[in-house]
Formats: sequence, structure tokens, C-alpha cells
Amino acid sequence: MNQPIDIAAYMQGVGAAAREAARALARATTAGKNAALVAAAAALRRDQATLLAANRDDVAAARTAGHDAAFLDRLTLAPKTVTAMAEGLLEIAALPDPVGEMSELRYRPSGIQVGMMRVPLGVVGIIYESRPNVTADAAGLCLKAGNATILRGGSEAIRSNHAIAARIHEGLRHAGLPESAVQLIATTDRAAVGLMVAMDKHIDVIVPRGGKSLIERVARDAKIPVLKHLDGVCHVYIDEDADPEMAIRIADNAKTQRYSPCNTMETLLVHAAIAPRVLPPLCRIYADKGVELRGDARARAVVATMKDATEDDWSTEYLAPILAIRIVDDLDTAMDHIARYGSQHTDAIVTRNHDHAMRFLREVDSSSVLINASTRFADGFEFGLGAEIGISTNKLHARGPVGLEGLTSRKWIVFGSGQIRT
Amino acid sequence: MNQPIDIAAYMQGVGAAAREAARALARATTAGKNAALVAAAAALRRDQATLLAANRDDVAAARTAGHDAAFLDRLTLAPKTVTAMAEGLLEIAALPDPVGEMSELRYRPSGIQVGMMRVPLGVVGIIYESRPNVTADAAGLCLKAGNATILRGGSEAIRSNHAIAARIHEGLRHAGLPESAVQLIATTDRAAVGLMVAMDKHIDVIVPRGGKSLIERVARDAKIPVLKHLDGVCHVYIDEDADPEMAIRIADNAKTQRYSPCNTMETLLVHAAIAPRVLPPLCRIYADKGVELRGDARARAVVATMKDATEDDWSTEYLAPILAIRIVDDLDTAMDHIARYGSQHTDAIVTRNHDHAMRFLREVDSSSVLINASTRFADGFEFGLGAEIGISTNKLHARGPVGLEGLTSRKWIVFGSGQIRT
Repeated sequence: MNQPIDIAAYMQGVGAAAREAARALARATTAGKNAALVAAAAALRRDQATLLAANRDDVAAARTAGHDAAFLDRLTLAPKTVTAMAEGLLEIAALPDPVGEMSELRYRPSGIQVGMMRVPLGVVGIIYESRPNVTADAAGLCLKAGNATILRGGSEAIRSNHAIAARIHEGLRHAGLPESAVQLIATTDRAAVGLMVAMDKHIDVIVPRGGKSLIERVARDAKIPVLKHLDGVCHVYIDEDADPEMAIRIADNAKTQRYSPCNTMETLLVHAAIAPRVLPPLCRIYADKGVELRGDARARAVVATMKDATEDDWSTEYLAPILAIRIVDDLDTAMDHIARYGSQHTDAIVTRNHDHAMRFLREVDSSSVLINASTRFADGFEFGLGAEIGISTNKLHARGPVGLEGLTSRKWIVFGSGQIRT
Repeated sequence: MNQPIDIAAYMQGVGAAAREAARALARATTAGKNAALVAAAAALRRDQATLLAANRDDVAAARTAGHDAAFLDRLTLAPKTVTAMAEGLLEIAALPDPVGEMSELRYRPSGIQVGMMRVPLGVVGIIYESRPNVTADAAGLCLKAGNATILRGGSEAIRSNHAIAARIHEGLRHAGLPESAVQLIATTDRAAVGLMVAMDKHIDVIVPRGGKSLIERVARDAKIPVLKHLDGVCHVYIDEDADPEMAIRIADNAKTQRYSPCNTMETLLVHAAIAPRVLPPLCRIYADKGVELRGDARARAVVATMKDATEDDWSTEYLAPILAIRIVDDLDTAMDHIARYGSQHTDAIVTRNHDHAMRFLREVDSSSVLINASTRFADGFEFGLGAEIGISTNKLHARGPVGLEGLTSRKWIVFGSGQIRT
């Protein structure tokens, strides 16, 4: 790849072009944005062979560079990945356009009518690892929300990303929208990331997609708001009044349906009164699935085969077949534990007690709080967003799964008929 | 005042106490929060003499220190200021409680019901100048939204602020809420501000209240999101199709109703076709009120008494009886001018043309956009928020006038009946 000589000047140019394109995108019609998405999807399907060839070069170079099997797996595009990217763009085209939505319009005593209008954020910067499908998914979602996008993908995927971006540009041209609405950073120089997260004049929000170390680095250096979550230390609390069978089903699913997602349970809290009834059968299920159990002394008194949990276990996101288990004496202790050790991501209670359910729902300060359902539901598709750009544990702006709406802002609008302030 | 010896340790203690109090406040009932506000209002009224005595000491010290008349004016409490503070708290008590509001609950194909619940932000840090009334106003609004507050007021107002905070503490005690829900920084050491804006573990959002230099300093140093606006370079655009009489009325009011607010017009844009009709009578009104006019060459060709506007005038927030005037050839040029020189605060169009009105409303990217109404309406009270903590030109989270809702966040909530993910 050609590397620009002056990276700072190059990045400023990209930023200025994005800011300019954002004005055109904010004015774009729903039909125009959808036409761009549909044309890009068609181009991805049509040019599948070209994409796969570019990707083979990326994979070969990464293999030569000594990357491991998991890395190569994330980097590799298959025909079905290309189909999924194209279908993803069509699904985004089918979603309602959030931009321009007016709401809460009310007349005020002065005679003006005041409300809110949903508007694009402006320019979104996406920083991600070597997963080429993010190029299409993130650009598509940002485009539908009326934002210009600056994409900085992992350098090992640069050929694949260029091939995908070229099809998105074709879609933009087809719809009469500026190509600079979606820009892929052409340099693989790592300095570009540091420059990008400091471009507060040109970028309105940064969305990092990848592992914790990437997100921590971006958040530390950023001069721009970052939509992010660092940890998913998610809990299920089995209350005294839980239906034992439901509790076992949910606690099993929350841990074992998949081990790597951020909404997988990492710590199970069980009320002392129900532990003798639910823990033995539940732990047999975990044992059959090869889940390593680490309990506090009281949990080990119920199921002797557990290992001893250390203080560190309560705040660890294993992302693996390991589970920490603690027995508590009441709802308040469970909520105190979640407040102390949790990551404000996703927490669930299993109970038949209405008061306990509603207290948990209100008092647990996490981005998703569930009653009698698996933590695994905390996801943009399951919540009905259609698609998600990521999950946020920020308190401000978007929280939890972030879809099209989280990629927009709202402004105040006033319809008057000549009113002045007296 | 006693100064703590180790300021860093003191600030950490304040932060930890606020975080702890925030959990209690998030659980507090509407009745409890309102009882605290009503009791604090009663205590302020009852102890008016004590408050005024403390304030006299502050004013005397500030006068000795050589502060100017405007500074002393902002610092001084009068009986009617104390009454206004008490009434402000009662008005906040009368507002609907945003916390716990559930919305958008929908069943999903999986059987879970998904929606959002409004929750407090947590801990709000307020950094303000020597205006003692902010102590009561800001603490009251944060309390109603369920947030703990850390207040850092100007050091010259420390006696007044302590006297006010003591009455708020009395209200909190009366309602059984922790006094640490509202903490006033006891030290006047300026290092406290730098420490405060870096306490990202203990504070969720910083709201600076004061002049531009204060806000710039806070925004530059903060490791925490800052709700802010820096400039209010607000525009009125008089379109070709404006009603001339309405245009004159609005342009007069937007500039001259008050000169110092951030929503006062600083630049007037006038379509060339209507300028000969509206500018001469409008400029006579401005001249009568002593407003200095600075126009571009075309505006000066219509009204010869204007001074020559320089490039700097287009981006200056005068906060004074000075107005920049430019003649433009069409709506697009007006919107380009606003995009280039404006501060995304508040902009208005005067027109009878529906298409122009709706294009301006949609395309001008400011926190408040008005059709046929004075920019002076962009205000929490006029918009119906009841009270405002400030105005934000941020794109993320709250934008425009920020009231109770802007001091809250939302989380996802799920009502299930045993659902697991398959």
C-alpha cells in the first residue's frame, strides 16, 4: 500500500472531507441513502471473487507474519461472509430512517410550538481490528443514520477493507452521494489512530470495535466522546423465590450458550435458602459442559467439587468456560455485590417475587437489567434495533446496545408565527 | 475557612461519599426528594438574615480584595434573591419526577418484553463562579433527578455557599436522605478544580457554570464528560419571503431584549431582495437603542451609517450592543454562513416560504433552530423544562437547554418469563 508522506496532513484532509460530506449526508433523502446501501450490497455480491482474492492476499501476508489461528480465522472472508455483509446492508436499508423524526411538539404559553428533531451526529470514527466485515457493517449503519464515517481497520486487513470500501463507494456514486461519506484510512501507520482520536473538530464520536486493550488505548488517548464498554462482568441472581427449574434453565443458558460474548454471565449469585435445591443439579449441567466452577466457602459447602474463588474472581470477565459462584443472604447483598464488582453491563434476576423483581430492575445500575430472562438477550438484534454498532456502558448518550438511534442526536425545534420574548 | 491539609485525599473522600450517596438517592422516592426540597426552601426563608450576614462578609472581603462592581453585584444576595432561591426549590419540587419512567415497552418474537427506564446519571460535579444562588439552583435540580452533587463555587462566595448548603443539608436530613448527597468543596484551593475534573471514577458528568474562560479550562482538563457551550454566535436570517414587519420585530427582539444572554443574536443575515425594505427601519430602531452596527459592503450600501465588518466580526459573540450584518443572495448562502461561522447554539429564520422554513429547520445543525420566533426563546423555562442547569452545544447526550431529563440517563429493561436464547 502507498503510505502518505505527511500523516498528520493526510488525516486532517480526511477529517475535513468527512465534515464536508456530513453536511451532504444530513440533507440526503431516505430514498437516496437506501439506494446507496442496495447498490453497495449488489456490488459486494457481484464482485465476490475479487473480494475473496484480496482477502487471500491479506491472509497469506498475516500467516507469513506469524499471526495465530484465531487471528487468521477472524481475518478470513468466506463466500458466506460476503453474502452476510451484503444482506446486512439490505437489512439496514429496510430499517426506518431515524433522521428528521419530530417529536414532543407542544404549544407553550408564549404561542411558540416547541419540540425535538432527530438529526445525525455528524462524523463517526470507527477503529477496529482485522475483521473486514466491520467495514461494511459499520459504514452501512452510519450511512443510514446520516453520518459520514472514517474507518480505521486493522492493518492486516487493508486489502480486504479497500476492496469492500470500493463497493460502498460505488453505491454512494450510484445514489449521487459523495464518496467521502465513507473514507477508509489508507495508511497502516499506527500513528494514524492517535491522530484520529484527537481530531475533535472533524469527528463527533469514536466507536472502537475490538478487544479490551484496543478500547482502553482509544479511550485513554481520545479527545472525542467514545462509545464503548470495557468489561462485561455480568451477573445472574437466583432469588429465594425463584422457580428452581427456570433458574437452572436461565443460569445454564446465560453461561453456556456461548462463552465469548460480553453479555455472557461471569458470576452467579444464589440466595442461601434456594442454593441446596438449585446448585447441585445446575452444577452437574456445568460439569457435563466442562465449565470450571469457582465458589465462595458457602457455595463449596453445597457443591464440594468447586474450586476456591479468590477476590479477583468477582471482577473477572473470563470469556471462557469458567464461572464464579457466591451464596448471598438477601436481595440487598446481591445488589451490593453487583454494584461493587460488576461492570454496569448486563445483570439479571430470577424470581417470582414482584417486589424483588421491581427493586432489582430499578436499583441495579447497569445498561441492561433483566427479570426472568437470560443475560444473552442484551443485544441489538434481540432488543429489536435491527443492527448494532456496539454496546455502551457509558452513562451519557447511548447506553446498552447501540443501533441507528444511538448514532443520532436531537435538536430543539420551534415553530413560531412572529413571537418575541417580553 | 479551614483548609484540608491533603487536598487530593480530601477530594477522593468527597468523591467516594458522593458515589455512596448516589445509590441512596437513586432509590429515593419522589415524595422523599420533594420533602427535602420543600424543607430546604423553608429553611432558606427562615434563615434569610443569617444568609445575608454571611454574604455581607463575602462581599466585604471581595471589595477589600479589589473586585469590580460587576463582580460584587453577582456575588451580592438580596432578600429577593433568597426568596427566589426558595421559590426555585419549590418549583423543582413541583416538576414531575423523571426517574423510573418506563417507555417503549414492546414484546419481541422471543417472548421477552423490552423497553427503557429513565435513571439518574449518578454524581454531577458543578463548577461555578461567585454566584451563590447557583448553589441552591443546581443542587435542587440534581437532587430531583436523583443525582448526588459535588459543588465547587467561586472562592469569594464560600461563606454564602456554606450558609446555603447548610439549609439544603437540613432539608436532606428532614427527608431521611444522606447529607453527602449535596457536598460543597470546603477548600478554596484552586487545585481542587483540577482534581475534581479528573475524578472519573466518582463523577459522571461535570457542568461548568460561568464565563468562557472557566468553561474552556474545565473542558480542556476534564477526564469526564462536560455538559457545556462555549459560544453563542446566534443568527437571525431574514428570508426574501419574510413578512417585513415580523422580521423587524424579531430581529429587534433577538438583539435588544437583553444583550448579555447566550441566545442573543450576534449576526443578522438579510436576503438581498428584502434588505432595502427591512434594513433602514430596523437600523433606525437599533440606532435609537444605541446598538453599534457592523456591516459588509452590501449592507453598508443600504444603510450608510454602519461600520465596516471584518472577518472576525462573523465569529464574535459580542454580549454587548453590537451587531454584525451581512446581505446574502439566497437561503443556501445563509446556511453556509451559519455552518462556517456559527457556534451551533441557536439560529432562526423569518420567512413565509414553507420550503425555506423546513429546509432551514432540518439543515441548520444547531442545538435550537427556530422558525419565525426570536432566538431569545432558546431557554429552559421558555421551552417548558421548568428549570435548566445550562445550555449544551454538545452533540452527544443533552443538547440545547438542559433540564431534569438531561440530568438523567436511560437503561434497557427486560421483562421475561423464563426465556433463554437459542
